[in-house]
Amino acid sequence: MMNDGSNAEVASLTRAACEAMDAADPIAALRDAFLVPERTIYLDGNSLGAMPKVALERAMKVTGREWGSDLISSWNTAGWFDMPTRLGDKVGRLTGADDGEVVVCDSTGVNLFKLVWAAATLRPERSTIILEGSNFPTNNYIAQGIAASSGGRVVVRFVEADDIMAAIDIDTVAVCMTHVHYKYGHVHDMAAITAKAHAMGALAIWDLCHSAGAMPITLNACGVDFAVGCTYKYLNGGPGAPAFLFAARRHHAMVQQPVAGWWGHAEPFAFERDYRAHDGIKQFLVGTPPVLSMAVAEVGLDIQLAADAQQLRVKSMALTDLFIRLVEARCGRHGLALASPRNAAERGSQVSFAHPQGYPIMRALIDAGVIGDFRAPDIMRFGFAALYVRFIDVWDAVDRLDDILETGRWQRPEFLSRDAVT
Amino acid sequence: MMNDGSNAEVASLTRAACEAMDAADPIAALRDAFLVPERTIYLDGNSLGAMPKVALERAMKVTGREWGSDLISSWNTAGWFDMPTRLGDKVGRLTGADDGEVVVCDSTGVNLFKLVWAAATLRPERSTIILEGSNFPTNNYIAQGIAASSGGRVVVRFVEADDIMAAIDIDTVAVCMTHVHYKYGHVHDMAAITAKAHAMGALAIWDLCHSAGAMPITLNACGVDFAVGCTYKYLNGGPGAPAFLFAARRHHAMVQQPVAGWWGHAEPFAFERDYRAHDGIKQFLVGTPPVLSMAVAEVGLDIQLAADAQQLRVKSMALTDLFIRLVEARCGRHGLALASPRNAAERGSQVSFAHPQGYPIMRALIDAGVIGDFRAPDIMRFGFAALYVRFIDVWDAVDRLDDILETGRWQRPEFLSRDAVT
Repeated sequence: MMNDGSNAEVASLTRAACEAMDAADPIAALRDAFLVPERTIYLDGNSLGAMPKVALERAMKVTGREWGSDLISSWNTAGWFDMPTRLGDKVGRLTGADDGEVVVCDSTGVNLFKLVWAAATLRPERSTIILEGSNFPTNNYIAQGIAASSGGRVVVRFVEADDIMAAIDIDTVAVCMTHVHYKYGHVHDMAAITAKAHAMGALAIWDLCHSAGAMPITLNACGVDFAVGCTYKYLNGGPGAPAFLFAARRHHAMVQQPVAGWWGHAEPFAFERDYRAHDGIKQFLVGTPPVLSMAVAEVGLDIQLAADAQQLRVKSMALTDLFIRLVEARCGRHGLALASPRNAAERGSQVSFAHPQGYPIMRALIDAGVIGDFRAPDIMRFGFAALYVRFIDVWDAVDRLDDILETGRWQRPEFLSRDAVT
Repeated sequence: MMNDGSNAEVASLTRAACEAMDAADPIAALRDAFLVPERTIYLDGNSLGAMPKVALERAMKVTGREWGSDLISSWNTAGWFDMPTRLGDKVGRLTGADDGEVVVCDSTGVNLFKLVWAAATLRPERSTIILEGSNFPTNNYIAQGIAASSGGRVVVRFVEADDIMAAIDIDTVAVCMTHVHYKYGHVHDMAAITAKAHAMGALAIWDLCHSAGAMPITLNACGVDFAVGCTYKYLNGGPGAPAFLFAARRHHAMVQQPVAGWWGHAEPFAFERDYRAHDGIKQFLVGTPPVLSMAVAEVGLDIQLAADAQQLRVKSMALTDLFIRLVEARCGRHGLALASPRNAAERGSQVSFAHPQGYPIMRALIDAGVIGDFRAPDIMRFGFAALYVRFIDVWDAVDRLDDILETGRWQRPEFLSRDAVT
């Protein structure tokens, strides 16, 4: 039903119809696992996922009992030592990797640094790293930092979406793509771009920040070489929770990463003088992980693992379809322009609309309890985490947006002033 | 009194005398801020500091309220954005740095990577990084990783303690010293080694992991260029809490670090395509910090800031002096050999004893509620965090050690088997 966008049908939609969709939603009960504040419509799970209710209990246990009471022994007895690989294997199951191909550690940026550098060492006769120029900047900055440190050996080339396939050539070290674009939400074809990279002898590095937990991902089926991603968006791991790093097993024996810390050593507790890299995925670890953040992140992964990725995707597509159609039908006359793909299959779990007054409109929406975010210069961004966003939330969000536009309430001085980061 | 080591005086010491020392301790009340499990004598604060009681409350608030209820808005309203610099300034006050010279972020290894690399770019005509070969391995591994990535440009030279001053020459990029040795506890002369480095045109990088919170540190008074350290030992920040990084302000305009993430950009939320480093200490940030771990770490810093560093040092020296003298007087016949400097001024807040059966003896001690740790091949390591370790703890620890040695209880099979990392 949701894919038939006729005006008549949209016009006939009511809040009651959305309630009926929720009643018929086979995964509606998953929302119960999350704390979503009353009167808040949270459409920012693509920036910071909501808190699983058990996260609070986990935070208390890891702090009060594991650290406070059991102290140093918890490295063994509470499984702290195994966290990077245990959580990594869980991420692997969510992203189509095998056990022993993923670790959870560091930040997305630090992990990307290791992998882009590693890719350059695997292709010493080539120089170019290809990225999407409009990508989330940190990926581009990391690549630029490596280029600057390489003394001309590595060069960064920015290309926009439609030109990426053609840009990959025999000088390409790696193509480094964010699977779902942070701002516009378009999905890149992981299989096709990876295949093109391999056909040219290059490597494919994927950033799953905006797709992990939002849609089925098949890293190994696509032949991906390396990947990174964060756990605090659709994986609901908590603010700034450590990132993950995937390296296909076929690379483990040959690869070399530059940040050689003791957690990446073959035998960390042998305290050997000289570095000897672990022969598996642990070679990408560096130092002691932030245990409290790791422990809480695992809760989010466990909830995601218990859900059906295909059902989540179906619901996510229905939610975003509904949002687009309601916004266009009810608010279209106010100059909102869809900035995400109209076809749900080409889009992640987010919808962006451009509007010249996007900033104050988003401020007014947040004030009205609809939490999205704004990305300069004119993008209003809305994320739809299928684990906890309902169809009536979509209805109510559009209802409040319509009211803000209709009344012009966004023109209040407190919304126009640029004193906050949304 | 504690510095007069006559046998007669030690022989006259009783548990009651230690109780009297606690009664006379001007900072005894600081212990009340920590959870120290009953019947546990915790002498491993040099590996993982004890939990401040308020840490549990902080963990609940940052998880349940700031994340769970306030969600994305907490980046502004709960001060999450400012955490790296706010916590950094607090570390700066504890280590003799100025505001704006320290950030809390990443792990010690990742931070050292940035700084050793940065040092190499500041001294492009030189090649050698000098480290103490017996140092905690991760520092050496990080330097070796940089050397391996540099294609011969950077070379690592390992030197032992007494030969460091002489090893610094006009080819030295930087001397990279751990202030207090992780295993033996000797203190390096920060002022002298830094001065020698500067006299030779080299840079001085200090690792404060085993000294921050354990003794007064005067980074700027010593003219130190760069420093790193962890917050989870004597700073009681929680397991794996993020590390810190110091860069003297005089270097901010010239330095370049290779891990160029968006948190290090001059304007992270401008989402510019090209990297443009922040002109202050923030240039050393990379990605989003693990907020839960950061929030709890701040609690440990606040407790430390409220204490008097000089008083802590005086007590720490008295505790370690007492421990050495009691062990030697009561357990000396069992073959324990002091592996730390006898002069308290030359030692950190830890004492190491070598014993061929150090591993099972430490296992038996832990079983008896005295938590120290073991470092291969034969070192039993005891840390004395003056914030919460008492003089009677020293007495009781030695009492139990004496009993274990006297009865030979350490020879039980469960202590001899090497199935745990201590």
